[in-house]
Amino acid sequence: MSTMFRPWPWALVGLTFCAACPGFAKGGKLLVIPMDGSHWLSMHEVVQELSVKGHECVVLAPELSMHIREGQYYTLRTFPVTFSKDLFQELMGNNFHKLFDPEPFLKKFPDMITTFKKVIDMYLSFCTDLVYNKELIKSLEDAHYDAILTDPVFPCGALVAQYLSIPAVYFLRGLPCGLDAESTQCPDPSSYIPRLGTENTDQMTFLQRVKNILYPLPHNILCHMSYSPFSRLTSQLLHRDMSIVDVLSHGSVWLVRTDFVMDYPKPIMPNMVFIGGINCASAKQLSQEFEAYVNASGEHGVVVFSLGSMVSEIPMTKAMEIAEALGTIPQTVLWRYTGNPPSNLSKNTKLVKWLPQNDLLAHPKTRAFITHAGSHGIYEGLCNGVPMVLMPLFGDQMDNAKRMESRGAGVTLNVLEMTSDDLSKALKTVINDKSYKENIMRLSALHKDRPISPLDLAVFWVEFVMRNKGAPHLRAAAHDLNWIQYHSLDVIAFLLAIVLTVVLIAVKCLKFCFQKCFGKKGKAKKATKSKSH
Amino acid sequence: MSTMFRPWPWALVGLTFCAACPGFAKGGKLLVIPMDGSHWLSMHEVVQELSVKGHECVVLAPELSMHIREGQYYTLRTFPVTFSKDLFQELMGNNFHKLFDPEPFLKKFPDMITTFKKVIDMYLSFCTDLVYNKELIKSLEDAHYDAILTDPVFPCGALVAQYLSIPAVYFLRGLPCGLDAESTQCPDPSSYIPRLGTENTDQMTFLQRVKNILYPLPHNILCHMSYSPFSRLTSQLLHRDMSIVDVLSHGSVWLVRTDFVMDYPKPIMPNMVFIGGINCASAKQLSQEFEAYVNASGEHGVVVFSLGSMVSEIPMTKAMEIAEALGTIPQTVLWRYTGNPPSNLSKNTKLVKWLPQNDLLAHPKTRAFITHAGSHGIYEGLCNGVPMVLMPLFGDQMDNAKRMESRGAGVTLNVLEMTSDDLSKALKTVINDKSYKENIMRLSALHKDRPISPLDLAVFWVEFVMRNKGAPHLRAAAHDLNWIQYHSLDVIAFLLAIVLTVVLIAVKCLKFCFQKCFGKKGKAKKATKSKSH
Repeated sequence: MSTMFRPWPWALVGLTFCAACPGFAKGGKLLVIPMDGSHWLSMHEVVQELSVKGHECVVLAPELSMHIREGQYYTLRTFPVTFSKDLFQELMGNNFHKLFDPEPFLKKFPDMITTFKKVIDMYLSFCTDLVYNKELIKSLEDAHYDAILTDPVFPCGALVAQYLSIPAVYFLRGLPCGLDAESTQCPDPSSYIPRLGTENTDQMTFLQRVKNILYPLPHNILCHMSYSPFSRLTSQLLHRDMSIVDVLSHGSVWLVRTDFVMDYPKPIMPNMVFIGGINCASAKQLSQEFEAYVNASGEHGVVVFSLGSMVSEIPMTKAMEIAEALGTIPQTVLWRYTGNPPSNLSKNTKLVKWLPQNDLLAHPKTRAFITHAGSHGIYEGLCNGVPMVLMPLFGDQMDNAKRMESRGAGVTLNVLEMTSDDLSKALKTVINDKSYKENIMRLSALHKDRPISPLDLAVFWVEFVMRNKGAPHLRAAAHDLNWIQYHSLDVIAFLLAIVLTVVLIAVKCLKFCFQKCFGKKGKAKKATKSKSH
Repeated sequence: MSTMFRPWPWALVGLTFCAACPGFAKGGKLLVIPMDGSHWLSMHEVVQELSVKGHECVVLAPELSMHIREGQYYTLRTFPVTFSKDLFQELMGNNFHKLFDPEPFLKKFPDMITTFKKVIDMYLSFCTDLVYNKELIKSLEDAHYDAILTDPVFPCGALVAQYLSIPAVYFLRGLPCGLDAESTQCPDPSSYIPRLGTENTDQMTFLQRVKNILYPLPHNILCHMSYSPFSRLTSQLLHRDMSIVDVLSHGSVWLVRTDFVMDYPKPIMPNMVFIGGINCASAKQLSQEFEAYVNASGEHGVVVFSLGSMVSEIPMTKAMEIAEALGTIPQTVLWRYTGNPPSNLSKNTKLVKWLPQNDLLAHPKTRAFITHAGSHGIYEGLCNGVPMVLMPLFGDQMDNAKRMESRGAGVTLNVLEMTSDDLSKALKTVINDKSYKENIMRLSALHKDRPISPLDLAVFWVEFVMRNKGAPHLRAAAHDLNWIQYHSLDVIAFLLAIVLTVVLIAVKCLKFCFQKCFGKKGKAKKATKSKSH
C-alpha cells in the first residue's frame, strides 16, 4: 500500500485548516456518545484509532452500562441516572431468552411490545438525565469539541449534537422505518430496495413488492412510539418544533456499517460512507487454548458457533436439540454458551464462555460458522470466507441471513421451528457442498477489493468533520424543500393550470369563431326551413 | 501517506482472482476508446498510470484525429475512415470561431444545428467504419481485453463494449438530457438538481424550478437526434431493439470528472466514482520561458488567460476589446492566443501559442484566471486556489461558471455582450476583493481533503473492473424494472383496487342491510299512510 498511492496533499489541507481552528494541529477533541451492546464493539476500534492519531476522545455514557467500560485509549465520563438498576439488568440481561419461547407470535406480541416500551423508556430516561444535567452540559460546552461521534439508533447523541451545535458523525448499521433514508434525503424506491424484516431480496415478484410496501406500515407505529419521545425532548430543549427527521438530519457524515457485497446496490447520498467489515479487518493469532482446540480437530477442522454478544444461553430443550445435531458432524464444534451443558453433548462439542470469533473464523481449519446473523458476525464470516448456517433472532438479522442465503453463501434456519435433523443437514450442506465455500470466497474477495480499509475510511471522515467543522458541502439542498416542492408537485400543478387555461381559452375562442362563421348560416338555414313549412 | 493507511489485503485479492483470470498477474489488457479533444487529455493520464502499473493499453482511434497521437505509454491503433478529411478539419478546426458571432441566437440557431448534425454524422460514420471493419473487430475479439475504458459522450466505445461483451468503464464529465442518471438508474429530482444549461443552482425559486423542468424539453429533441443513430446501429449489430439507455447501461463503473465541491450534492449510485480534479493533481516546475514571465511580473503577479484547447483565436473586434481591458490592470497577462495580435495590445499582455496552464496556476504569483469555464480549467483554478473570471462559451460551461460564481470564487461575463469595461471591472474585483481569494482557497482545501487522489481512484476502479470482469454487484436491480414497476404504480393500482372493492362491497352490504331493516317499515308506513287517505 505504501507504494501504491502517490502522496495527496490532504495533510497540507489539515495545516491550512489549522489556521482557522487552533488546536487541531496538536489533535482535535472528539466526544463519543455510543450505543451500548454489540454496537459499541466496532465503534470502539474507530475511537482507539483516532486516539492513536493524537485526538482527545471522551466517551460519554450513563453509569448503567453493559459493555462501555474504562479504556486505554479514551476518557470515560459517566453521568448519574435515575433509572432502576434492577430493571436495567432485567432488560439487558437475559431478556433475549424470550426469543426462544415456542409460544405463537400473537401470544408473545403484547409481552414483546411491553419490553420494547421499557427499553425505550430506559434510553429516554438516560437521555433526559444527560440533557438536564446542567453541570455536565456546561462542561461539554466549555470543552469545545470539534465533533460528536454517535450511534443514532437511539438518537440521544444526535440530540446533544444539535443542542450544543457540534457537528455530528453517525456510526450505524441502519435505522428502522427508512428513517436513515429520510434523514439524509436519500431516494429509497420500494420497488427494488427490500424493507427491513420482509426477507425480500432486490429481485422481487409482484406479490413481494406488495409485501414490501405493506409490511413497513405497522413498523411505522413502532417507530413513532420509539422516536417521538426523543423529538419531543429536542423540541422542549430547543424551544421549536422538531421531528425526529429534523433531529437526525443534523448528521454531517453517516458512516454506514455495510457495503454492496452484503447489501443490494441502491441510491446513496454523498455524505454516506460505507464501512462494512470494519470489525474484521485485523485477525490476531489465536490464544494457546483455542490453538489447541483447532489443532486437535484433525483433517475435519472446526465449526464456530455463537449467537452474538447478547445471547449466551438458550432454553434447555433447544440446547439439547442443537447438541444432538452438532454430534452428527465430524468437525470439532466450538460453541459459545454460558448455561448448563446439555446432557447429550457430544465429544466433538466444546462449550466456551467466550470465543475469539474473528480470529477463529480467520483460521484456515474453520469449515463453517453457526451465527445469529448479526451484522458483525456476518461480516466476520464474509471477511474470512467461512460458509454460514444462519439462525436469525431479531432486528435486521433475518434480512442479513437472507442476503447471505440469496448469494449461496449460507443456509438459513428458523431457530424456533427447526429440528435437530434440519441443523445437521444444514451444517453438512454448507461444509460438503463446495459451492458454498466458493460463493463465500468470491464474496470475501469482492468485499476486500477496495482502495482503503473501512477503518481508515471511518477515521478519515471523522477527522474530516473535525477539521472542517462539519461537511455542509455534502448536504443536499433537498433538506430545504417540503414534500410538495421536492416532488415538484407545485410546478406540475402550475403547468397543468396553464395548459388547462390555454385549452379552455382556445376551446372558447374556437366555439365563438364557429358560432360567428356558421351560427348565422345555421340560423339562416333554420329560418329558410321554417318558412318552407 | 505511506504511514497513514494500514495495508489492506486487496493485493491478495488480486492474486485470488488471478486464479480465475490467467494473465492478470502479469498485467491486464485494456482497450481504450477515447473521445477526441480536451476529453482525451485527462483520460490520457489514467492510461499512462495503468501502463506504468504493467497493463497493456491499446488506444483505438479513427485515423482522423486532433489530439490522439502515438504515445510512450500505449499502443495507438487507428482504423481507416470514409469521412472527408476536409470536412473533419472544417468541423474540428475553427468551428468555435462562430461562438463569438454577435448575431442574435435565433438567427444563428439553424446554422448551429446544421453543424451539430454534421459532427454527429462524423462520429457515427467513424463508429460505423469501426464496427463494420470485420478484420479489426476479429482482432479485437481475439485480443481478449479485460475491459474497455471509454468516454460515452459519443457512445461508440459503449457500443463496442456491448457488441464484444467486454466490461466497460466510462470516463466522463456528464451526459446531456440526464442520460447518465437514466443509464445508471440514479434518481435525479428536478426540484434541487439544476439541469444542464439552466444556470440554476441547487437553491431555486419557484420560477427557477419551473425553468428547470421546461428548459430540458427541447434538449431532448437534440438528444434524440444525437443518440438515436447509435442505438439504431447497436440494434442492427445485436439483432435486437436497443435504446440508447440500454447501450449506455452496459457500463460497470462510471468515473465522473466532478466532485461535490464543484457540483451540488445529489443522489448517486454505488457504481459512480467521483474523480473531479484528476487533471490537476501534479503541477510541474515552469519552463525557463514562463518562469521568466512570472518573475518579471513584480509584486502584482500574473493573470492567466486561456479559452481552452479548442478555442485559440477569436474575432478581431472582440480581441481588441479584451486587449483594452487587459491593459487596465497592473498584472502581467499571459494570454494563449494564436491569431493576429490586436493592435491595441498593452505592454503587460504577452501572447503565447500554448501555455502550461496548470503549472502557471499553481505558481504563487498567479492572481487570477480568465477561463472559458470548461471543467478541466475550472478544476485547475480550483485545485490551485486561483479566483476566476469566467467567459463560458457552450456545453456545460455556463453551469460550471455559475457554480464558481454562486460560491463567491469568480465573476461570470457574457462574452458576446460584455464591454471592455466589464472585463476590466471583473478582473479588478476578483484580484482586489479578498473574499474571492478566500472563497477559492476554502473550496480548494475542501476539494483536496480526500483520502485518495482522484487519479489513484480512477486507476483502482479500472483495475477493479479488469480483475473482476465487471462489477455486477454494484448494478442496481432497478435496471430490470420498467417505469411502472420502478414507481410501484402496479402495486398502488392493485392496492387501490382492493380498497375500492372492499369499500364497494361494504357499501352494498350496508345498503342491503339498511333496506332489510328499514325498507319494510318504510313500505309499511307508506301503506298505512295510503290507507289513512
